[in-house]
Amino acid sequence: MRRGDMSDRPSRMVRLGPGAEFDRIRRAVAKAGELPATVRVGPGDDAAVLEGGWVLSTDLSVEDVHFRRSWLSAREIGYRAASAALSDLAAMAASPVGLLVSVAVPGAIREDMNEDMNDDPGVDLDALYDGVREAAEAVNAAVLGGDLSRSPGPLMLDVAVVGCTLWPVLRNGAEPGDELWVTGRLGASAAAVRAWQQGEQPSPEARDAFARPVPRIREACCLVEKELVGALIDVSDGLAGDAGHIAAASGVKIVLEASRVPIAAAALDALGSEAALDSALYGGEDYELLFAADPGTVDPASFEQRFGLDLTRVGRVFEGEGVWLDTGDGEPRPVAPASFDHFREPGR
Amino acid sequence: MRRGDMSDRPSRMVRLGPGAEFDRIRRAVAKAGELPATVRVGPGDDAAVLEGGWVLSTDLSVEDVHFRRSWLSAREIGYRAASAALSDLAAMAASPVGLLVSVAVPGAIREDMNEDMNDDPGVDLDALYDGVREAAEAVNAAVLGGDLSRSPGPLMLDVAVVGCTLWPVLRNGAEPGDELWVTGRLGASAAAVRAWQQGEQPSPEARDAFARPVPRIREACCLVEKELVGALIDVSDGLAGDAGHIAAASGVKIVLEASRVPIAAAALDALGSEAALDSALYGGEDYELLFAADPGTVDPASFEQRFGLDLTRVGRVFEGEGVWLDTGDGEPRPVAPASFDHFREPGR
Repeated sequence: MRRGDMSDRPSRMVRLGPGAEFDRIRRAVAKAGELPATVRVGPGDDAAVLEGGWVLSTDLSVEDVHFRRSWLSAREIGYRAASAALSDLAAMAASPVGLLVSVAVPGAIREDMNEDMNDDPGVDLDALYDGVREAAEAVNAAVLGGDLSRSPGPLMLDVAVVGCTLWPVLRNGAEPGDELWVTGRLGASAAAVRAWQQGEQPSPEARDAFARPVPRIREACCLVEKELVGALIDVSDGLAGDAGHIAAASGVKIVLEASRVPIAAAALDALGSEAALDSALYGGEDYELLFAADPGTVDPASFEQRFGLDLTRVGRVFEGEGVWLDTGDGEPRPVAPASFDHFREPGR
Repeated sequence: MRRGDMSDRPSRMVRLGPGAEFDRIRRAVAKAGELPATVRVGPGDDAAVLEGGWVLSTDLSVEDVHFRRSWLSAREIGYRAASAALSDLAAMAASPVGLLVSVAVPGAIREDMNEDMNDDPGVDLDALYDGVREAAEAVNAAVLGGDLSRSPGPLMLDVAVVGCTLWPVLRNGAEPGDELWVTGRLGASAAAVRAWQQGEQPSPEARDAFARPVPRIREACCLVEKELVGALIDVSDGLAGDAGHIAAASGVKIVLEASRVPIAAAALDALGSEAALDSALYGGEDYELLFAADPGTVDPASFEQRFGLDLTRVGRVFEGEGVWLDTGDGEPRPVAPASFDHFREPGR
């Protein structure tokens, strides 16, 4: 039972926001009573874990908060929502089994999408479900059910995922002395959002990073098989935010090295190096893996060969608390957690 | 594997609507590929079932579709959303273990709910979560996680539930000759909605039926222990609609006897007998149990003694298809499925 750890661990329910909201919702969740005996890991990590190794998580995608309909096709909206949810299984090193998708859809729900009805262009539900199914099948998961409602406002999708693992990896296993590693390259998804917000079209690479994120399921399972990983999370709140989740859950201090943060070429091209670093640190929604491991145990070359994906040491774990950024000029400075809401000013 | 049955079974994903939408979404779900070996029951019933007897379902509650904020307190909104979702576990005769709750909340999310901010009165998130937790704890379930987002429109909650059972009861086991039974009394929840829609206050009984539905978990588990139940569903789409789900899933015809439909006193008082019967048949959201059983095997007296809840035979199962209503004057007539959307004209 990890119940006793909960008050020290940030909750998945607080993904929304920095500061006070974070604390308030954490308190609300922390009121929860005793967990049933069949629950191995309760709220506070990327997912809950049940007896038998079943892993459960849920992820909400809201129009005009997480995406705009003018940015993505209906199929991409479904694909992205499902992939984002499945990424929480990667963050536990679990193998996906299935998902349930709830959709609240604006406008009339109608048989023929070509038909003219009221002023809402409508949502192509078939395409939306096709996207959900495509994302599920890409990781050998099935659509197990869901719910559907009319929405008097934005399009919303909530995707609950279920996977299984005998060795779930939590956020709270980082120890002083560990190295902190990240897969892939960061910031491209945020660069796409920036372009759209400025009325421009993102580059194909940046757009793809936003529209078709890849949950790093195989990569996570491989890393865990080799017993390298002490703490694991997916980068959905920006590198700084998710390093902060590991630091808080593990009761450690994390120092990120600015010069080592792997930045996507699409972000560098679009934003320049300084803003691209910001995108990587605070932009979120890259859905790469961030993990802590014993020093010297990670072999990035063999990982890169196997998966065609960078694996970069971005920092180190120390005694203390919080996330700090070492820019190379002077002492590391503390960094604040990120906000993932595209439509607000950054919360730092 | 029940996979082969799926095309004949109505999907949970089609709860929204009658007619064409129903068929379109069913087709979208039916495209799903092979189910993983660890999935025992896929989409199409009240819930999915995994190896080991884990049962999963999800249920969406959308402001101005399923409730209004002027009707319910934040705590009641949370309680009702969670109870509605947990009722799907009752519909499988599963014991609840936990739930994940995703909330999209309008307005700024703020620390102090008394603070004046913009024109949205805001949602008391602490109270909302209290309501969710209360509903969960009432059936020995725990809050296992969730997600939280700002909503640029209505308040929405999606509650994914997990339970377990070694003997899930599906919708497709009704056989010609069976009796059809329903727990409790129907129509009170719809009477409350009717009152609010007419600018009146519902009676306390009607309001309570809407605001604090009780998932019939113990009742379902007891009925299944005694091996009485061939097909089981919860009444969330109205008696006619949910009898229709059993009829379609089981490939049978169901005849409801109008004079036997147990109508709540609150509905009779508010609506008169004819409109109250309509509320029971088409109103939905009573969250009672509807089941088919071998004739002569159900003992309503002992059930009523144990649970303080009516158990009424409302109809019979025949060869054929569809749901028919026997009003006692002439031949039974076919009834159309219900729409559960309070803010539309009834879909029949």
